[in-house]
Amino acid sequence: MTTLPVIRLRPKTKPQAIRHGFPWVFADEVVTDRRTRAIKPGSFAVLEDPERKPMALVTVNPESKIIGRVMDANPDAQIDGNWLRARLSRALAMRERLYDAPFYRLVHAEADGLPGLIVDRFGDAAVMQPNAAWADGMAGDIAEALRDVTGVSTVILNGQGRTRGLEGLDERMEVIAGTAPDAPVKVPMNGAVYMADLMGGQKTGLFYDQRPNHAFAQRLASGRVLDVFSHVGGFGLAMLAAGADHATLIDGSDAALALARDGASEMGVDGRLETIQQDAFAALEALGAEGRQFDVVICDPPAFAPSKPALEAGLRAYERVAKLAAPLVAPGGYLGLCSCSHAADLTSFRSASARGIGRGGRRGQLIHTGQAGPDHPTLPQLAETGYLKALFFRLDG
Amino acid sequence: MTTLPVIRLRPKTKPQAIRHGFPWVFADEVVTDRRTRAIKPGSFAVLEDPERKPMALVTVNPESKIIGRVMDANPDAQIDGNWLRARLSRALAMRERLYDAPFYRLVHAEADGLPGLIVDRFGDAAVMQPNAAWADGMAGDIAEALRDVTGVSTVILNGQGRTRGLEGLDERMEVIAGTAPDAPVKVPMNGAVYMADLMGGQKTGLFYDQRPNHAFAQRLASGRVLDVFSHVGGFGLAMLAAGADHATLIDGSDAALALARDGASEMGVDGRLETIQQDAFAALEALGAEGRQFDVVICDPPAFAPSKPALEAGLRAYERVAKLAAPLVAPGGYLGLCSCSHAADLTSFRSASARGIGRGGRRGQLIHTGQAGPDHPTLPQLAETGYLKALFFRLDG
Repeated sequence: MTTLPVIRLRPKTKPQAIRHGFPWVFADEVVTDRRTRAIKPGSFAVLEDPERKPMALVTVNPESKIIGRVMDANPDAQIDGNWLRARLSRALAMRERLYDAPFYRLVHAEADGLPGLIVDRFGDAAVMQPNAAWADGMAGDIAEALRDVTGVSTVILNGQGRTRGLEGLDERMEVIAGTAPDAPVKVPMNGAVYMADLMGGQKTGLFYDQRPNHAFAQRLASGRVLDVFSHVGGFGLAMLAAGADHATLIDGSDAALALARDGASEMGVDGRLETIQQDAFAALEALGAEGRQFDVVICDPPAFAPSKPALEAGLRAYERVAKLAAPLVAPGGYLGLCSCSHAADLTSFRSASARGIGRGGRRGQLIHTGQAGPDHPTLPQLAETGYLKALFFRLDG
Repeated sequence: MTTLPVIRLRPKTKPQAIRHGFPWVFADEVVTDRRTRAIKPGSFAVLEDPERKPMALVTVNPESKIIGRVMDANPDAQIDGNWLRARLSRALAMRERLYDAPFYRLVHAEADGLPGLIVDRFGDAAVMQPNAAWADGMAGDIAEALRDVTGVSTVILNGQGRTRGLEGLDERMEVIAGTAPDAPVKVPMNGAVYMADLMGGQKTGLFYDQRPNHAFAQRLASGRVLDVFSHVGGFGLAMLAAGADHATLIDGSDAALALARDGASEMGVDGRLETIQQDAFAALEALGAEGRQFDVVICDPPAFAPSKPALEAGLRAYERVAKLAAPLVAPGGYLGLCSCSHAADLTSFRSASARGIGRGGRRGQLIHTGQAGPDHPTLPQLAETGYLKALFFRLDG
C-alpha cells in the first residue's frame, strides 16, 4: 500500500458535518502548510480530524475553495476499478428500479458518491463529464468500469463547460471507448422520441432533467401548444405525443430544430409541427403583435442567472419572458416557466414569474412546481443547490 | 342593487399588491372606523383605494387579522348563484383536464377564487368545508351551484377543524343536499381503491393531496413495504397496487385500518396486507428491536408543527420519526418522510429528516421532493404556504 498525503482539519473545526455525510472540505477548514499546498490537484489524501484521527478518503485540489471532496468514509479505501464498479452498480440499481429503458442520468456527482462526475446513459452509449481533476485523470478506468457494469459499448468524454475551468481542466471531446455513433441517437422518453447528437455537446445533446416536467406538461396538452427555447423539442414533442393537435417550436439553433423535426418524423407527427428559428424574445414579441394564442405555452430558457453576479439581470430576463409569454396563453390555458439557474432560488424565480404574468396583463394559479427527476439525486446536506425549477400556471379566463 | 358597505385602504397603503392578485387585506391596512367595526362577519363590501376609488369586492370579517378577502376584482360583482357557478365551472374545467375520474379536490379556497372554501369531490358526492363566514352563510347556494355545475347528487357540509374557530364559526356536520351515502365510498386513485367514510370527518375521510406522492412511491415499490401513520392506507395500498409483495400498515385508529383492509379486499390484495393498531412511535421502536427491515418505508404523520409555537417540538418529532424509521430500511432501500405542517418549511423539515437519518445510523441520497397535487393550486403570491412536503431518500447499502 502506498502512503497517501494527509490533510487535517484545523483545531476548532467540528468534524460532525463530514461524519454525517457532508461531502466537502473548505480550504479555510484545514491546516494549509507547504506540504498541503504541494499536493497535485486530483490526488487522493487522508482527511484527519483535529486530533489526527483519520476520518475519510478525499480527493484534493489545493487551488479550489473546496480543497477536499470526500470519496469514501473509509480512509483506507482503494479508489480502483473495483471501487468504481461498486459505486456505479449502486447508481445503476436505482435507475433500473425507476426507468423501463436505459436512458437516464446514471451518475449525478456527489449524490452518487462520485464527486464531480456526471454520466448520462443513452442506451448502448454513455457520455461522461469528468468535472473534477480525479475523474479526469481516471477517465479510462471509469470508462472501463462503465462498460463492465452497464454493458454499454461506447463511452464519450464530454469535457466542456464552466465547471472544468474552475478545476483547472482543459476542454476535451473524445470517444474513449468503442466507436462514436454515426448518427444522432433515438431517445425514447414519455412516449416521445428525441434525437440526441452525442458528439455535439450542449448544443444538440439531450438533458434528462426535465423528464418529469415534460410529463406534467403532457397532462395539460391539448389544442395548439408553444415551446419557447425548445432545444431539440423537449416539451413540444412530449405534448404532441400526449395528443396536442399542433406544436410550435422556437429556438435560436437551426441544428437543434432540425433534430426536433427528425424526432417528430420518427414519431409520425411531423405534420403537426412548426419550427421557428429566431431569437426567442423577438419571436415572442412577434407572436404577441400578431395576437396569436395557444392552449399551452412553455418557456425553458438557458440559465439567465448562472452565478450570483448575474442574479439581478437574470431575474429581469425571467420576468420579461413571463411578461411576453402570458398574453400568448388562451383564456383558461396553461403557462409553464422554467429556470435552470443555480443562483435564482425558487422564491425569487417564482416572484419574477408572477410579476411578469401580472405585467403581461394576466393572473394565474400556480398548479405545480416541478424539479429535476430522481436520476438527478442530491445530498440532503446540499439540497439547497437544486437548480431546476418548473412552474406551471393556469391563467385566468 | 343594494348599497354595500365600504372599507378603505389607509393613505400610505399601496394598492398594487391587491391589483396584481394578492387576495388579502390586513386589518392594519384599512381605515377602521365605527362603521367598519360594525360590519357583520361574512358580509360583502367594496374595497376602496386611498383615493376612494373602488378596487374590488371583498368579504369582511372585522374580528380577523385578515379583515378582507377579495371575492372579485370587479367591485360591482354580484355574489349569487351565477357567480358561484362561474367560479365552480372554472375550477371543474382544470380538474377535468387533469383527472380521468371525478375524484379530486374541486375547490381549493383562494387559489380557485373562492376564499376559505374547500370542496372535495367523491364521484356523485361532494364534501364542502366552508371555513370562512361568507361561505358558511351561503352554504345552501354553494350546494345548489355544486349540483348544477358538477351533477353531484349529495353535498355534505363538514364544518370541523381549527380554521372555522378562527372565523368564529361553530362545528357542523350535516348533509345539505341529497342523501348521505349509507356506506364508505370507493375511491379509485393510482390503481388502488380507498374506502372513504365521508361522514367520519378527518378520522376516516380521505385526503387527495398525497396523490402524486403515492404515485412516486409506486415507482419504488417492490418486496415488503411499511406504511407508518397509514390512515386508510394511502401509501401502502398504492404500493400493493404497483406490485409490492406485502404491505404492513401502522396506525393508531382501528376505524382507519378497518377501511384500509376493506380497500385491500376490493383490490383483491388483502392476503398481502398486515395492519398494526398501535401508537406509531411505539410500533417503530418495536420493529427496530425485532431487527425487521423493509424495502420501502413511508412515514406520513399528522401535523407535528401546525403553528409557529409548536415548531421546535414538531421538528424534534419529525427527527425522531426519521431516526426510528431509517434502521427499518433494508440496505439500498427507500425511505419516504412526509410533513403536512404549515409552520415547518421545506428547509427545516429536510434538515430534521437528514439529522434523524444520520442519528439512525444511515446515510441517504434525496431523490425526490414531492408536494400536494395540482388539484391543490396556490396563488403565486401565497405560494410560501405550500404545506405538504414529501421527501424520498434512498439509503446506503
